[in-house]
Amino acid sequence: MIDLDKSYPTDFVLFGARGDLSMRKLLPSLFQLHRNDLLNAETRIIGVARDCKSVEAFRDEVSATLNRYVKPADLKGSACADFLQRVEFVELEFTEDAGYQALAELIDHEQRVMVNYLATPPAFFGEICQRLDAAGAISDTSRIILEKPIGHDLETSIVINDTVCKYFDESRIYRIDHYLGKETVQNLIALRFANNLFGSQWNQNHIDHVQITVAETVGIEGRWSYYDKVGQMRDMVQNHLLQLLCMVAMDPPSQLTADGIRDEKLKVLRALRPIAAEDVFKRAVRGQYTAGAIQGQGCPGYTEEEGSKGKSNTETFVALRLNIDNWRWAGTPFYLRTGKRMPTKMSEIVVVYRNQPHYIFDPKQKSMVTNKLIIRLQPDEGIRLQVVTKEQSLDKRMALQSRGLHLNFSEGEEDRRTPDAYERLILEALRGNQSLFVRRDEVEASWQWCDGLIKAWYDSGDEVRPYSAGSWGPIGSIALIERDGRSWHEG
Amino acid sequence: MIDLDKSYPTDFVLFGARGDLSMRKLLPSLFQLHRNDLLNAETRIIGVARDCKSVEAFRDEVSATLNRYVKPADLKGSACADFLQRVEFVELEFTEDAGYQALAELIDHEQRVMVNYLATPPAFFGEICQRLDAAGAISDTSRIILEKPIGHDLETSIVINDTVCKYFDESRIYRIDHYLGKETVQNLIALRFANNLFGSQWNQNHIDHVQITVAETVGIEGRWSYYDKVGQMRDMVQNHLLQLLCMVAMDPPSQLTADGIRDEKLKVLRALRPIAAEDVFKRAVRGQYTAGAIQGQGCPGYTEEEGSKGKSNTETFVALRLNIDNWRWAGTPFYLRTGKRMPTKMSEIVVVYRNQPHYIFDPKQKSMVTNKLIIRLQPDEGIRLQVVTKEQSLDKRMALQSRGLHLNFSEGEEDRRTPDAYERLILEALRGNQSLFVRRDEVEASWQWCDGLIKAWYDSGDEVRPYSAGSWGPIGSIALIERDGRSWHEG
Repeated sequence: MIDLDKSYPTDFVLFGARGDLSMRKLLPSLFQLHRNDLLNAETRIIGVARDCKSVEAFRDEVSATLNRYVKPADLKGSACADFLQRVEFVELEFTEDAGYQALAELIDHEQRVMVNYLATPPAFFGEICQRLDAAGAISDTSRIILEKPIGHDLETSIVINDTVCKYFDESRIYRIDHYLGKETVQNLIALRFANNLFGSQWNQNHIDHVQITVAETVGIEGRWSYYDKVGQMRDMVQNHLLQLLCMVAMDPPSQLTADGIRDEKLKVLRALRPIAAEDVFKRAVRGQYTAGAIQGQGCPGYTEEEGSKGKSNTETFVALRLNIDNWRWAGTPFYLRTGKRMPTKMSEIVVVYRNQPHYIFDPKQKSMVTNKLIIRLQPDEGIRLQVVTKEQSLDKRMALQSRGLHLNFSEGEEDRRTPDAYERLILEALRGNQSLFVRRDEVEASWQWCDGLIKAWYDSGDEVRPYSAGSWGPIGSIALIERDGRSWHEG
Repeated sequence: MIDLDKSYPTDFVLFGARGDLSMRKLLPSLFQLHRNDLLNAETRIIGVARDCKSVEAFRDEVSATLNRYVKPADLKGSACADFLQRVEFVELEFTEDAGYQALAELIDHEQRVMVNYLATPPAFFGEICQRLDAAGAISDTSRIILEKPIGHDLETSIVINDTVCKYFDESRIYRIDHYLGKETVQNLIALRFANNLFGSQWNQNHIDHVQITVAETVGIEGRWSYYDKVGQMRDMVQNHLLQLLCMVAMDPPSQLTADGIRDEKLKVLRALRPIAAEDVFKRAVRGQYTAGAIQGQGCPGYTEEEGSKGKSNTETFVALRLNIDNWRWAGTPFYLRTGKRMPTKMSEIVVVYRNQPHYIFDPKQKSMVTNKLIIRLQPDEGIRLQVVTKEQSLDKRMALQSRGLHLNFSEGEEDRRTPDAYERLILEALRGNQSLFVRRDEVEASWQWCDGLIKAWYDSGDEVRPYSAGSWGPIGSIALIERDGRSWHEG
């Protein structure tokens, strides 16, 4: 493992360098690492894409994207010009050898570690690896970073992983789930394992249930024909939501190492109780949005979106009632929901504690005494602890009040910039730390469970239930949790 | 029990109405209750004292004291004038019948409940009761509020209680410990019994130890000859510190009633392990201040104070290591300390949680991961929870930081006035609620334990240990806790 805070001299090769993800997220993140002096002075950033004729032209594009996506204050001085000096470019068609040769000539395996970032459709993962290898562009220290999705199901993910593994050892493969790069998700590690107050109660004895919500306001964004083959289960649950679930539910690792953490996450995935066809109705609700409005703005229904082919049984919303069959969580359900065209963009994890076994205050206040730990990822990152205190008053009967304690920011630190998840993830890949990346067996365990549920939906003839754009999903999602005497947390 | 939020029509009879406590605290508190519409319209305040010739003269004194001790903004409008209309006065020498007759004629038992507040030296408690009774001034609904100290030891407290009990039933006696009237002390009830997060860990399994500090910067304030017979143990530990201990340590009462709470407090006092002569050295340190300085201001030593009779073995500082021999607290020590001429005026309770059994972060940060709940009574009231979070940074090794979460005040409420403890206590006495007052058996159990320790000091020939004014007490107090591998909480 590399023991530099900055990272080794690197040739960072960005496939799909002119794509949306690179322009919006990856290049601005690389710039921030540069600006904060976290890149080694020798590190180069090598854009790889087609249809761009020169380094200069590509640098102009990078400069334009920084000006668009980076705060002007951060661009002051020579930071931007210095950053552009690191930028190289190789014109390359993924399916043609020529570009790989040019890349091979540019890469300097003696002085630098090669880190490939594949911001491309997964269909190209195998071919890119194979052609890189054929051109002699990679060495046995080279690393590869893969964007999701890794496959469409267990079978196709095995194909992708098998191919990539031919050229890169598992210890050099970095599968991104950008939710793992978020500050608050990592803060879960500190909260759970550095605070006995939380750590010792993190189990079915003390936690009533957990809720994980990832709500988007956007719809399909012009990707109808792609999305219609995938659906919310494969697009969001299989990766982001199950990864968050793992971070909340895992047993404490003995050591804070990449495999220490990933072994524990894997155990959670393997303990997830399968949902069979006969359980679908009560445990796994699918929805699809119809026309509606979000914040006063009208939206079409899913089947009326641009590119729609009409009738569809693809879900744009999923709500699940999960059980983790292990010692820590037996009896404590996890409720997950994620959907498109929700009322607000909001991702949060809500850990709901059991109440005291006995209640001695004003019966009218009984419903307010629940302690909750709320970990919010979007739109703003933050952690809040809901506790009950005495209201400061001279009332005859002690009046309680529920207070939200904000854990994240102490005085003077509110204006500190929260690094983007991609900054953290790219930096860790440059450092050679796999902790925040998804291991092959995790991907496969996750697909295995998801495939089971997708089959159950199919076998049971499940039809998506309609919900209005701008609502919190179909009624079945409310019923899913209310049936247990619980409610979705409201903000 | 009275079911009015305001309290019944009352004749509030204040003995010692011209004394320091009345002028500084009780009359301003009564005024605040009036101003906040918590006194019944018919309630009268009857000052009783000697050497004042008329109601008018007394009202002038009350008006002057309000102008001195109440915030000008609170005196605006007619509040002050309206309050003075409630004020009556009876000139009375505690030891002469005449005044009691005049009082008896004034009191209206038909329309009002009589509540006597004895802000007098305890030596008069018996005689006042007896003469009130002889003059026919009290009825069997009359109540009495007693200021501390109730006696000098168990024997003398029994004498006082026996006498008072002849004229007032225990259900009508309100023994004040003004620490119990503080908002944050009452908030302990809400924190402990309305939050499972705290409540379920409130025991020896999860709490390493508890610290209670009551530090004063003042010295003897001209009371040398009185104080020298009493000392810090009787003056502060027997009442305030042991009452705080009870509030922290008591088992949850089944109901939030006066006797529900007081039964549980009593159990704590009865479970306090006695300190024998052979244990004094390690478990009960006494100190006496020598000349020094507080915040740059020179102070004389105890034996050089005005009124000193020279050499003295009276303690002005006590530090104790207490054990509560019950199921909840076996193995969890309580460290108490209180002293005069400390560096700052500060009262706080610090609940220190056990650490996680295993530690996986940077070894250099290991000492910072302790969770603490800090309940501060002075100089400002407030509750703080010390938790550990991830520092927001891109450091290679996850950096932890300890954060103090302030539980008490949420946005917009910071400027809310915290009611003085005496407001709360007088109001509860007017409402007939004894929850915040000390029951006879509590006083006696507390004296019994304290008498044992005082005898142990005497039997062991214990000499007070010197400490400089402006320090945190003698070295023995530091050693008392450090010997156990723990430290007094700083700041």
